[in-house]
Amino acid sequence: MTAEIICIGTELLLGDILNSNAQFLAQELANLGIPHYYQTVVGDNLSRIHEVIKIASQRAQIIIFTGGLGPTPDDLTTSAIASFFDTPLIEKQEIIEDIRNKFAERGREMTANNRKQALIPESADILPNLTGTAPGMIWQPIPNLTILTFPGVPSEMKQMWSDTAIPFLKSQGWGEEIIYSRMMRFRGIGESALAQKVNHLFDLQNPTVAPYASMGEVKLRVAAKAKNIQSAEKLILPVAKEIEAIAGEDYVGYDDDTLASVVGKMLLERGETLSVAESCTGGGLGSMLTEIAGSSNYFMGGIIAYSNQVKIEQLGVLEEFLTEYGAVSAIVARQMAKGVQKKFNTDWSISITGIAGPGGATETKPVGLVYLAIANPEKQVESYELRLGEKRGREAIRYLTSCYALDKLRRELIDNR
Amino acid sequence: MTAEIICIGTELLLGDILNSNAQFLAQELANLGIPHYYQTVVGDNLSRIHEVIKIASQRAQIIIFTGGLGPTPDDLTTSAIASFFDTPLIEKQEIIEDIRNKFAERGREMTANNRKQALIPESADILPNLTGTAPGMIWQPIPNLTILTFPGVPSEMKQMWSDTAIPFLKSQGWGEEIIYSRMMRFRGIGESALAQKVNHLFDLQNPTVAPYASMGEVKLRVAAKAKNIQSAEKLILPVAKEIEAIAGEDYVGYDDDTLASVVGKMLLERGETLSVAESCTGGGLGSMLTEIAGSSNYFMGGIIAYSNQVKIEQLGVLEEFLTEYGAVSAIVARQMAKGVQKKFNTDWSISITGIAGPGGATETKPVGLVYLAIANPEKQVESYELRLGEKRGREAIRYLTSCYALDKLRRELIDNR
Repeated sequence: MTAEIICIGTELLLGDILNSNAQFLAQELANLGIPHYYQTVVGDNLSRIHEVIKIASQRAQIIIFTGGLGPTPDDLTTSAIASFFDTPLIEKQEIIEDIRNKFAERGREMTANNRKQALIPESADILPNLTGTAPGMIWQPIPNLTILTFPGVPSEMKQMWSDTAIPFLKSQGWGEEIIYSRMMRFRGIGESALAQKVNHLFDLQNPTVAPYASMGEVKLRVAAKAKNIQSAEKLILPVAKEIEAIAGEDYVGYDDDTLASVVGKMLLERGETLSVAESCTGGGLGSMLTEIAGSSNYFMGGIIAYSNQVKIEQLGVLEEFLTEYGAVSAIVARQMAKGVQKKFNTDWSISITGIAGPGGATETKPVGLVYLAIANPEKQVESYELRLGEKRGREAIRYLTSCYALDKLRRELIDNR
Repeated sequence: MTAEIICIGTELLLGDILNSNAQFLAQELANLGIPHYYQTVVGDNLSRIHEVIKIASQRAQIIIFTGGLGPTPDDLTTSAIASFFDTPLIEKQEIIEDIRNKFAERGREMTANNRKQALIPESADILPNLTGTAPGMIWQPIPNLTILTFPGVPSEMKQMWSDTAIPFLKSQGWGEEIIYSRMMRFRGIGESALAQKVNHLFDLQNPTVAPYASMGEVKLRVAAKAKNIQSAEKLILPVAKEIEAIAGEDYVGYDDDTLASVVGKMLLERGETLSVAESCTGGGLGSMLTEIAGSSNYFMGGIIAYSNQVKIEQLGVLEEFLTEYGAVSAIVARQMAKGVQKKFNTDWSISITGIAGPGGATETKPVGLVYLAIANPEKQVESYELRLGEKRGREAIRYLTSCYALDKLRRELIDNR
């Protein structure tokens, strides 16, 4: 039983977009324990799509297609698959209804070319798309070959995969030996330093332990192969506990845990509230905090103090401090934290002021210099200096600043227990 | 003359890494005007690598390989290519010297397994790697087939491509015509509706016009083939102008233009300022606006009014309106916009209040219901109701809300000229 991934779209051949769908599907197949040995990318061209179907159908028992399900003439996936297997397309009334409803919800009329998206082979099942107009299909055109199609829009594809494809694959008895993993997340320690600390675990066979690094975060993936999730978790747990103990405060959480969710959980447990005052991040920290559903239980809001005027009038920063020390200084960060804590009457507050670049640097203050401050329920304010370097670029500096701020609050919450 | 890309590495099949090499090479081939119709990913497995070489060598005249050039036993690329074409490998003394020197520079001794990286077919040319130990090769194993190999590390691969592969390909007379494109961006119109309006342009041969869709945005790619960029631009311009005229206000900009940059440019030209009051987006709109370097020239800041208390105290929203109409209502949105405009003394302001979900819905107010309001320099306030649907999820609802808000401001700025 092997699967194969075929991504269709001339934009992939032109390099206009990154093929993140292939990575997502590859991870998902690995998690299900369904082997796949080949991925192919092909453009919106009938004879070439036929060519790759011919090759893949000789090698694999499951073919997963992404892309080419849209309403325009260059969207060929469904018709190419059907014509390869000499099967006519029929218009499914329930798809038409679904598309019409989606247009109606947005106050628009369905256009004629959307009818094309309702055409699938008679014996194919609809793979419903909750948000977009392009449904996929699950179809067995010949014995021992199952085809699944997905649109190219990643958010739609992922939802359809989780909601329908996984249950379907499992119902077929595929993915019986599962690979189950826990992604453990760390902050404030480098990949190599963490790797040295847990070096003795890298030789384990089941579960395996492997390091990953992404921007501002180091991860360890602890993965076990077992008959079911419960057995896998039993294998994973003692190893995960050992790693937690080794990493101490640098361990943040696992899987879906984020800095914002971990901090939010701690605030909720303590019944404490938080506000923010943001300059260079411009709302990014507030946005990160409010990614968490239910964050209104502890996050009251904040001031985006992008201009000095707002820092003075809304946060009570003294004009002479701005003149003497500059907006990017520890003392201004502290005043911002105090100001928003008082104004919003919260237990905690975080402030951020820095130079995200590319402009704005001075002789003594380079791009990437950031001050942040945290005010605690005892009205004490701690400030921190970050030097993120000039070469990372504006986006990374802003993102990392919000991450650092949340990590500092996380550590203060731990220490302030 | 067509090329094909083959990426080798089990880590790609496990989804551990994103295949950014394929995107880079795709863009480069497009820029050189060398067509490529297929990309394949295969793991570190001899017979399966042979299988993909067999298929690609029947379809293409240039095959570009990435990955599998390292010193470990699972690095099979060079030996697999050579054995497919029945050619022995020989040890190239100059590669050994180069690797030894690189180790010496770092004060280390070359390890025995690095000798493997010096093995290439006798008639192959070395494709030098300035930074890493893995050189590639340029080899013509049979008439009308040229093979180029690169390591999988993106930085090394890119440097080798620019330094050696491009000059080589041009010296062969390939890549003399370039493909140059403009990505035109639209809002407020669906992919199918836009496609119908510009339907007559889809049959053009040079430039070509093709539609793309991503979340909340529709794009048209206008691409021309020509001797140089200037000639390509001459071909693109009249078509782009025609599309602009057809799309009217729905046309936002092209290439690197974003809603935030387009709005920012308009505000800057008019010498006007902006503030925001955000509830459900929690700072996301401010963050989007401040992605633009220099946004401090027109964006003053804002209030993240996540709690009702903040709406009342900081923005002057009347408590009885919150009780009577609820926080998610047009009237509260209008008061928020007025409140922040006054408080921050800006020409324009945007406010957002909505239900991002998954909780928070009531009988009359579903998840995805959002009100936004825009106050203009004449202190007039216009409010808008969005119904984004319950199924998109919190993240998409918040992101789309910020996009809609910026798009509404963009349209008001156009109308208010």
